[in-house]
Amino acid sequence: MGDAAWEQVAGGVTAPRGFRAGAARCGLKMKGDDVGLLVCDGDGAVAAATFTTNRVCAAPVRWTRDAIARGGVRAAVVNSGNANACTGERGLRDAEAMARAAAAALGLEPGQVAVASTGIIGHFLPVATVAPGIAAAGQALGSSLDAGLRFAQAIMTTDTVVKEAALRCDLGGGAVTLGGATKGAGMIAPGMATTLTFLTTDAAIERPLLLGLLRRAVDVTYNRISIDQHMSTNDMCLCLASGRAGAPPIVAGSEAAARFAGALTELCGILARKIVADGEGATKLVRIDVAGAPDEATAVAVGRAIADSPLCKCALHSGDPNWGRFVSAAGYACATLDEAKARFLIGGKLAYAAGTAADTPPEELAAAMAGRDVVLRYELGLGDAEATVWTCDLSKEYVEINAEYHT
Amino acid sequence: MGDAAWEQVAGGVTAPRGFRAGAARCGLKMKGDDVGLLVCDGDGAVAAATFTTNRVCAAPVRWTRDAIARGGVRAAVVNSGNANACTGERGLRDAEAMARAAAAALGLEPGQVAVASTGIIGHFLPVATVAPGIAAAGQALGSSLDAGLRFAQAIMTTDTVVKEAALRCDLGGGAVTLGGATKGAGMIAPGMATTLTFLTTDAAIERPLLLGLLRRAVDVTYNRISIDQHMSTNDMCLCLASGRAGAPPIVAGSEAAARFAGALTELCGILARKIVADGEGATKLVRIDVAGAPDEATAVAVGRAIADSPLCKCALHSGDPNWGRFVSAAGYACATLDEAKARFLIGGKLAYAAGTAADTPPEELAAAMAGRDVVLRYELGLGDAEATVWTCDLSKEYVEINAEYHT
Repeated sequence: MGDAAWEQVAGGVTAPRGFRAGAARCGLKMKGDDVGLLVCDGDGAVAAATFTTNRVCAAPVRWTRDAIARGGVRAAVVNSGNANACTGERGLRDAEAMARAAAAALGLEPGQVAVASTGIIGHFLPVATVAPGIAAAGQALGSSLDAGLRFAQAIMTTDTVVKEAALRCDLGGGAVTLGGATKGAGMIAPGMATTLTFLTTDAAIERPLLLGLLRRAVDVTYNRISIDQHMSTNDMCLCLASGRAGAPPIVAGSEAAARFAGALTELCGILARKIVADGEGATKLVRIDVAGAPDEATAVAVGRAIADSPLCKCALHSGDPNWGRFVSAAGYACATLDEAKARFLIGGKLAYAAGTAADTPPEELAAAMAGRDVVLRYELGLGDAEATVWTCDLSKEYVEINAEYHT
Repeated sequence: MGDAAWEQVAGGVTAPRGFRAGAARCGLKMKGDDVGLLVCDGDGAVAAATFTTNRVCAAPVRWTRDAIARGGVRAAVVNSGNANACTGERGLRDAEAMARAAAAALGLEPGQVAVASTGIIGHFLPVATVAPGIAAAGQALGSSLDAGLRFAQAIMTTDTVVKEAALRCDLGGGAVTLGGATKGAGMIAPGMATTLTFLTTDAAIERPLLLGLLRRAVDVTYNRISIDQHMSTNDMCLCLASGRAGAPPIVAGSEAAARFAGALTELCGILARKIVADGEGATKLVRIDVAGAPDEATAVAVGRAIADSPLCKCALHSGDPNWGRFVSAAGYACATLDEAKARFLIGGKLAYAAGTAADTPPEELAAAMAGRDVVLRYELGLGDAEATVWTCDLSKEYVEINAEYHT
């Protein structure tokens, strides 16, 4: 990952040089902006993206996957309030209509525009409503940090807070900025990217290298969070690079590439954790470190088993140090688990070792679960691989949000 | 499965000939009996069992797995209120102590006694409390249906209803009876058997055949239910056969074996559904039929993805026909899913086809989800395999039970 040669700076997608963003309200959501535009200016634009692996994938995912594969993407249009998923051929035409409206507003070709949608599944997108919104967002384009913030607000659905971040990264021979906006609070268990994420950078970098670094960054951040283990049909993580920072181009295998990769991973981690912290009904942000695994996949599987167990999530909600629930979740996720070697810690306090309770007083374990931030650690004692998975607790409010308020 | 040559009869584990059961209270639970004994009388006793595949498995599971492998098991002792799981070497000694106390009460050797426990994980079993309870249960042994009922009550934990059933099966050349008691309402997602289940029959059958039929019966019933996808450390399904019905011995490959297998599967299905119907906080019993799958494993995976998704379970709770949640869960469970071929039905009403909404009015779909019993059907259109998975909804009461009431 290289050295931690980055520092957090203000702003989001418009923090790097060479980007403009805009937002507007067309009326798809109950309130607030629900259409956003993002464009990378100049001829050096490069785009890379990762997408949901859900076989039921939304029309905008299909459109954007094709556009990215053809090359030349330098802008994105996004709406919230309607996912344009499970909408068949008409959905594809509607996604293309969004790209056409955005291209008209930006002076581009439709094939240069990535399309993203989020909201309810199975309803046709009202293009006649969305298209004027896209035009209005085009009128509102700007490169200020506030323009980036409005873009981030326009992609929110059940989110309770806006989610953006930016880092400045010292490459050694120059500096670049990375920015990002993300959204999501439910239907969050990415298998490739998560939910909608828009990353920008003014680094000069070629597409294959950017895609490789993006895939790895997403894999160890977005792909290791879970709110409710339900992989969305619309997950997309798009990264646009403008090359406008003035720093030398980033070359594969260089120290600069390692530093950039570190910053990109950090940015993705910051954004992904904002999603978990804002999980529907969540009151806790839970970090699950799994160490001593025979391989990375097993480490992730153990972390996910805990993150996805409603029993574990309820214990986290109440701060109940009922470690049997956590320990037993690992028992069905790791086929080679050896109770004699495993250790489980809550907030650094040993809860379980040698197949039975450790002698840490229960009140110390309870204290380690009392705050908003909880750190669990499962040491398998089987190898050297490790992984960190992030999740939140399960509350009655989650049920309220997803059951009592009908869609 | 043979013809449906069975009929439901009264009772549970003591419905077949050759069984006695007893129960007593030792004080492990807040109230009610918490120790049970079951014994198969006569020299023809045969035992088979399936166990949790959780690598973190309880001491009684280890004891009983060994005892079954050695042969000669003809009785079971069970306690509720303490799982004797994650209790290390001391836990194994405590499980053996339970077997010894039961053997003393029954006039058997300890190795002839299966041991089962259910309750909180990670607390040592208070043998000094349990042993007198076992002796008292021995004093209470009887072959009446009421004795079987008391045994079924003694194994309950968060269950709100007692769960027993019995069937009479016409083998063609004679009739046999099958009985069973089961328990469970949470930590229910079996991977081999589920929770504690005790089956009895007066059929004459050899051990390998009984084990084979039991494994298949459990695989298509208990292994296809999920309340909260958390596989227990203590799951066990024990089947004892007395051979006392007077019917001819059941031979592998015979019509009688097929009939017996059908009845055994039906009994397991009845008992397993009682568990789901009594799921913690549950208000609905949900049947998920998956058809047209390329293979049985994929059919089960699609059913489980729906059964385990908190978003789907919340939609079920409110009776919201938000079919996008169900359809998208299948999308991450079936790697070859083809939206063009898939169909999704709620209560027999078509909700989704050809990749988009069907034209069934939403109010008809809502009506099909309004009752306590809901039937979902996912037709993949990819092959001939099918499977049925059972689950319940997710309510605020589930969170209350598992979070607000500390352990």
